[in-house]
Amino acid sequence: MSDTVFVIFGISSDLSMVKLLPAIYHLVKNKGVSDFSIVGLASSDYTVDYLVDNFKKRMKNPDLKVINKIKERLVYQKGDFNDPSTYIELMNNINQSGNKNILYYLATLPEYFKSITCNLKKQGLTKEKNNWVRIVFEKPFGTDLKSAIDLNNCVTSAFSESQVYRIDHYLAKELVQNISVLRFMNSTFEPLWNNEFIDNVQIILDENLGIGRRAKFYDKSGVVKDIIQNHALQLLSLVAMERPKDLTPENIRDAKYKLLSSIKPINKSDICLSQYKGYKNEKGVSPDSTTPTYVATRLFIDNDQWAGVPFYIRAGKKQKNKQIMIYVEFKKNYLNNGVFENLNPNYLVISVQPCEGVYMVLNIKEPGRAEVSPVKMEFVHAGAFDVNTPEAYETLFECILEGDHSVFVRSDEIEQSWKLIDPIIDKVVNPEIYEEGTLPNCVKNLIESDNRKWFVRKSCNTK
Amino acid sequence: MSDTVFVIFGISSDLSMVKLLPAIYHLVKNKGVSDFSIVGLASSDYTVDYLVDNFKKRMKNPDLKVINKIKERLVYQKGDFNDPSTYIELMNNINQSGNKNILYYLATLPEYFKSITCNLKKQGLTKEKNNWVRIVFEKPFGTDLKSAIDLNNCVTSAFSESQVYRIDHYLAKELVQNISVLRFMNSTFEPLWNNEFIDNVQIILDENLGIGRRAKFYDKSGVVKDIIQNHALQLLSLVAMERPKDLTPENIRDAKYKLLSSIKPINKSDICLSQYKGYKNEKGVSPDSTTPTYVATRLFIDNDQWAGVPFYIRAGKKQKNKQIMIYVEFKKNYLNNGVFENLNPNYLVISVQPCEGVYMVLNIKEPGRAEVSPVKMEFVHAGAFDVNTPEAYETLFECILEGDHSVFVRSDEIEQSWKLIDPIIDKVVNPEIYEEGTLPNCVKNLIESDNRKWFVRKSCNTK
Repeated sequence: MSDTVFVIFGISSDLSMVKLLPAIYHLVKNKGVSDFSIVGLASSDYTVDYLVDNFKKRMKNPDLKVINKIKERLVYQKGDFNDPSTYIELMNNINQSGNKNILYYLATLPEYFKSITCNLKKQGLTKEKNNWVRIVFEKPFGTDLKSAIDLNNCVTSAFSESQVYRIDHYLAKELVQNISVLRFMNSTFEPLWNNEFIDNVQIILDENLGIGRRAKFYDKSGVVKDIIQNHALQLLSLVAMERPKDLTPENIRDAKYKLLSSIKPINKSDICLSQYKGYKNEKGVSPDSTTPTYVATRLFIDNDQWAGVPFYIRAGKKQKNKQIMIYVEFKKNYLNNGVFENLNPNYLVISVQPCEGVYMVLNIKEPGRAEVSPVKMEFVHAGAFDVNTPEAYETLFECILEGDHSVFVRSDEIEQSWKLIDPIIDKVVNPEIYEEGTLPNCVKNLIESDNRKWFVRKSCNTK
Repeated sequence: MSDTVFVIFGISSDLSMVKLLPAIYHLVKNKGVSDFSIVGLASSDYTVDYLVDNFKKRMKNPDLKVINKIKERLVYQKGDFNDPSTYIELMNNINQSGNKNILYYLATLPEYFKSITCNLKKQGLTKEKNNWVRIVFEKPFGTDLKSAIDLNNCVTSAFSESQVYRIDHYLAKELVQNISVLRFMNSTFEPLWNNEFIDNVQIILDENLGIGRRAKFYDKSGVVKDIIQNHALQLLSLVAMERPKDLTPENIRDAKYKLLSSIKPINKSDICLSQYKGYKNEKGVSPDSTTPTYVATRLFIDNDQWAGVPFYIRAGKKQKNKQIMIYVEFKKNYLNNGVFENLNPNYLVISVQPCEGVYMVLNIKEPGRAEVSPVKMEFVHAGAFDVNTPEAYETLFECILEGDHSVFVRSDEIEQSWKLIDPIIDKVVNPEIYEEGTLPNCVKNLIESDNRKWFVRKSCNTK
């Protein structure tokens, strides 16, 4: 995994400081990455000392030997991402690093993605000889279908698809990676995974914070572009995709793409867009902004497996609990014995975070009484193994270094997601205003009008 | 549940002292049974004081108020069970008790079952007027098919089937009662419960002790009559029966009977009989005894649901762990991705005792590594609810008092089980001798010749 120069565009960004450099730190400390260097680019006057101190002070008990190793191997390059001369200097820095393989990481604003890609191509910095050259894009990849196609065309003219890593960092979360394993490397779920046995699926991505310092980006995009187009649809595609030929990355991406292509267009009545109270007063937000910060939608999949099964997705900000989970509710096609009227349905919860794990709720006779009650049959992910669940970015880097595309999104998936999302975004006119810590009314109504309820998790008190 | 006279034939027996009187004690103490009396019969000279002291001294921290209540309401009657005059005196004792309902409990040697039943009938003590009259039989109910039919004929001429409670005390164990609930009051198991998804089922009933003081009974019967004919076949019928119309007792018994009738006759090659080393030296055992103390058998069920699925049953004495469990192994019809060759099958374990609970073993990706490992998704029965798992006999009494037959065995089930067992018993000639704490070789060979292994539970260390 070594002999690599990490070229980070936007080295001074929060992303670099909080996620990328710590991830490299952990790879060096724990995973034996040794023969590496880092070229960090940004547009201001920084020094290596400043950058390393800045990242170090955010870490708990940093190992100074590792910090110093990073400091020795980090080159800072000031430069304008749109200026071709930046790439001449970059080429020199790469050559001087002495490392063979090149990993470009675009931790910049998305408006630079195209320019950086084109300039790398012009300078001949995208070609592989006896090495590999890989490029990593953070989201958002495009701001709508048109821009995503535009950017994909640019990227694929400079790089082959196999060189490109479009991050959806939710895909690197352990429990998300486990969806395919759970479904396809066990015998007990797939036979039940269809409209004969499943009543509905809920994908819940609640954040408790507001937009923080992200107004500039967020007010332009909103929750649909921020969460649904990428994370939520990726989760949905993993939950609902057909059994792939095998679990190799390309076959999974084929299956995800096929699923995304099978989602029916979203009707106006199948979506609710809303905005938290006070959003318009957030620094950097337009005072008449209609940007939605919370969304719920009901999707249907146009194939035999899922005909008639609603997939409810909700996501957004200022909720009581920060939680990402997938709830799969089974139909109550069991004997209820006449006696027990209000039996629960069985359901499976994949808890992505917090309280990582999987549990299934079963009906069981209570000891000593002729009553039936729900019990949890559970495994807690962190407890099942000795090691700690790794940070998502560490996993991402490992995958990129190993050339494993399984947690990255292919161009066709991106475009298909935008195709689904584009018509929704145009419709935002007057989002419902909701109080902090509450679900918008239209979000509740969306599911309650189907005589169903949003799943409420009772016993995850970690955060 | 009150206004009942408990008539216990064999009041001085271990069963009465260790199980029946303590169960009545708990019913009085915890379940509000108040207006009751007890008539205890035996053939020796006992006093009420002696009997109550004898049962009291075996209890931990007995509640003296409850003990005294039992003492006040207990009448001891010395009598010969074969003598008609015993039943005249019994009638007087019952009448004097002032209680309306009569519960006969036969805690005697089985050779008295017929005589007691006939004498009760002759004395007119079996008829219900404005009360109920119920009779409880401990196992064994017959010693072979012929004697079981004979006894059933006698019993059913004296009582209607609805008055008769043939105990299989395994049926009262919480996890056994849960088999039907688990299967039929949940949506997630029944679709998998057939030969398309299940590879094999193992029913394991290991005891760690030898025969103790039961030589007189045991040497005549052996493990097949002691465990297989009743407990094991009852467990098998609950695990494998078709979905009943509903979970009312008669419909469950119909389904169990149908299943028992579908078991194919047992071939000689499908059974292994063995005897623990030193058995012939046990006090009361014939020195040339061929009585088996351990048995394993492979059964097949002659219907579409189970065609080709072996049900392995093993049971017997002098094993390392005392354990009753049902292991359901699913077929490995999942993607193994080429990469992971030795993946486990999924399996479900219903742990009847110890460590009461249910767990399922799933394959899950290990955190931070591209490895797949088995994890337990589990619920522990005692932990799922607040109350303690009640003693089996307390539950039995409650069911009898409420007229609930769900944990009792119907005459047709008994006869069907004997029909299956009869041919095996005749075959015992020269059982393999096995060392204490080990499985007999032929038991291992029985399953290993099918390229399977007996399930070994790793993490139940309660006892």
